Amino acid sequence: MRMSITELETYVTGIGQAARAAAAALAKATTAAKNAALLALARRLREQRVALQQANALDVSAAQTAGLAEPMVERLKLSDQVVEQMAQGCEQVAALPDPVGEITHLRPRPSGISVGQMRVPLGVFAMIYESRPNVTIDAASLAIKSGNACVLRGGSEALHSNLALCKLVQAALDEAQLPTGAVQLISTTDRAVVGRLIAMPEFIDVIIPRGGKGLIERISVEAKVPVIKHLDGNCHVYVDASADIELAVRVTNNAKTQKTGVCNAAESLLVHTNIAPLFLPRIGAVFAAQGVEMRCDEPSKTVLRTVPDAKLADATEADWYEEYLASTISIKQVPDLDAAIAHINRYGSHHTDAILTEHQPSAMRFLREVDSSSVMINASTRFADGFEFGLGAEIGISTDKLHARGPVGLEGLTSMKWVVLGHGEVRS
Amino acid sequence: MRMSITELETYVTGIGQAARAAAAALAKATTAAKNAALLALARRLREQRVALQQANALDVSAAQTAGLAEPMVERLKLSDQVVEQMAQGCEQVAALPDPVGEITHLRPRPSGISVGQMRVPLGVFAMIYESRPNVTIDAASLAIKSGNACVLRGGSEALHSNLALCKLVQAALDEAQLPTGAVQLISTTDRAVVGRLIAMPEFIDVIIPRGGKGLIERISVEAKVPVIKHLDGNCHVYVDASADIELAVRVTNNAKTQKTGVCNAAESLLVHTNIAPLFLPRIGAVFAAQGVEMRCDEPSKTVLRTVPDAKLADATEADWYEEYLASTISIKQVPDLDAAIAHINRYGSHHTDAILTEHQPSAMRFLREVDSSSVMINASTRFADGFEFGLGAEIGISTDKLHARGPVGLEGLTSMKWVVLGHGEVRS
Repeated sequence: MRMSITELETYVTGIGQAARAAAAALAKATTAAKNAALLALARRLREQRVALQQANALDVSAAQTAGLAEPMVERLKLSDQVVEQMAQGCEQVAALPDPVGEITHLRPRPSGISVGQMRVPLGVFAMIYESRPNVTIDAASLAIKSGNACVLRGGSEALHSNLALCKLVQAALDEAQLPTGAVQLISTTDRAVVGRLIAMPEFIDVIIPRGGKGLIERISVEAKVPVIKHLDGNCHVYVDASADIELAVRVTNNAKTQKTGVCNAAESLLVHTNIAPLFLPRIGAVFAAQGVEMRCDEPSKTVLRTVPDAKLADATEADWYEEYLASTISIKQVPDLDAAIAHINRYGSHHTDAILTEHQPSAMRFLREVDSSSVMINASTRFADGFEFGLGAEIGISTDKLHARGPVGLEGLTSMKWVVLGHGEVRS
Repeated sequence: MRMSITELETYVTGIGQAARAAAAALAKATTAAKNAALLALARRLREQRVALQQANALDVSAAQTAGLAEPMVERLKLSDQVVEQMAQGCEQVAALPDPVGEITHLRPRPSGISVGQMRVPLGVFAMIYESRPNVTIDAASLAIKSGNACVLRGGSEALHSNLALCKLVQAALDEAQLPTGAVQLISTTDRAVVGRLIAMPEFIDVIIPRGGKGLIERISVEAKVPVIKHLDGNCHVYVDASADIELAVRVTNNAKTQKTGVCNAAESLLVHTNIAPLFLPRIGAVFAAQGVEMRCDEPSKTVLRTVPDAKLADATEADWYEEYLASTISIKQVPDLDAAIAHINRYGSHHTDAILTEHQPSAMRFLREVDSSSVMINASTRFADGFEFGLGAEIGISTDKLHARGPVGLEGLTSMKWVVLGHGEVRS
């Protein structure tokens, strides 16, 4: 599957030029045309379900033959339910307000001009992702609605599925009289393509990698264009001295155990020393009942030793940094709010952190001083999600501070340009 | 002035750690404390004017001895007027609303949580700049107000002046009981420091280079942290078929000649073919009277040949890309609005472009479809400026699309994090 350097260059340049041209057309497309494409895509997904599943079967059987782990094979599958969810997703994106063209804060200035800001598409984004073929439709639908062109590079194990899905997207674009270059899929599995894709600022405005940390770090280091990236989710729950114990047990349990393999699950529990003797045995019993391993500092371990069947271990310095993505949590006692905030800002990954407290001033200080994308009071970290936040859809979660931070929806795929309305004013 | 690698590492690490620690304190500082520091700085600038000018005299005489061009020497000087302007600038920044802590769009969600966004400082920014020592005070005052720490690296030719200014800033911070590490100046002229500074994501969140294109390109290529950068300003004025001729002459002239060495001056004039016979002789005469060289396409040259004393030349392909920063303008006729927009998006630098027209639909299309940081209707491109736009102050102008675009003020030095207010909600 290796291309020569010349072939590669011709291939990516062709993709890049088509994307640039399509982006100009998409940027000025009407809301009606964009929604027509999205609804046509929903219809075609349902109509072509069987054909999609035939293409998908090629990927699934190849994965099985290659001996991929069962959960990986499951993620590949375009079941009836997954196809229906993709179709509904397109309809939901169609129903969202069009972010493009909105003008805000248009205000007259002393010079006579009026100055405001207009929301416009970024241009072309490239998305590099693994496994799940439904991400192809997520990315395509968000690109269309936000007026961006996109270049998609999915996992090689899902290539047949992605090609079939991309064909539907392009047919839907064509039906709505929008350029098919707006959504293109890299059809080769040659890895060198990714290297070129992330180094073409003339064609690509932003890269959105989704996948393992290794992939994202490699892309961030090598990219010559901005990257909207999502690294670790080492999320904390801090149980303050004045927390409601029942609430704290319920929320902490949900944050850790409702789903463990996700970035917004809690990985570390900080407990105020004053409440530890009351709270720790309660949450310890709940964790013990579910087999959650607790990696503790010495004071917490002392308290938790009284809990029957508790899986206890000593926390090392490395544990405070760890994103387990598993049924494991680190536990530490802190003497006060300052120590909790300092610990989170030092060891955390600036993703999502929550305080559980009834004390208003502590809640407000935590909100302001914890330097994370999402900061919560008395709620489960699991809420850090584009849908739960009301974005309607999510292209990813950013742990960066510049541009989009936290869950990235349609607005994160846009930029604000300045608009000036004058009447012949000149500068003196 | 060369440091050993170990000395360099110790030096930049010390600066970085102090900046990080100060950033945490600044982020939670009250508006009152930040304003107190700014007003103390204004007072100290006025009180220490003579001492500042003594330090400045060392730089000025060294520059004269080194044979620096007279305009460069002028830019170095801390005259009475420049000192007073710096003091007033601090007072103006103090008078601006505090951007930090603002919570917007806080809305209840079906789950019971309320979700909003809070404006917070970015953390630490590093600014790398040349010549003018007053930039030291601009950057310091914007850092303090926006709750960021900053590390400043000015031009070596202004080192004595910058050290004296930074000492005043730190005294003002101390007077307001804020950490002096919030504003630090690199006190060595060793160029290796810049290389380290732009590659320390653990200490620096964003780099803001200000200076020549070479400096900015080099920093962008080598930086390991995000860069808010400003490259060319190849700004266009497009005179539409339905432009008001008087208005078009006035605005075009202002955009080109009011100040030529600045990034928001017009460098290229596009004229609709229908209006060219009327408009070009008028603007041509105005330009001829001021000695502006006109680099023309063939049709424009044909019209302009009738203008007495017109300095005409043939435009080459390179002229359409050129930022002259001089008394020169490229001139081209276009058959329609589409051609004008296509030309600007292809050859422009996405800085500032204006349409002069009485035709509303053309104005609206230009606004939406020209992919630049600032897009204007019937106004001079010279208005693209933080003060003119009402930002109160400006740390630079960004030609990037992500994060801050166009003039960057206090808000550009902040980021929006998500805040979630709950009552014990869990995810199901």
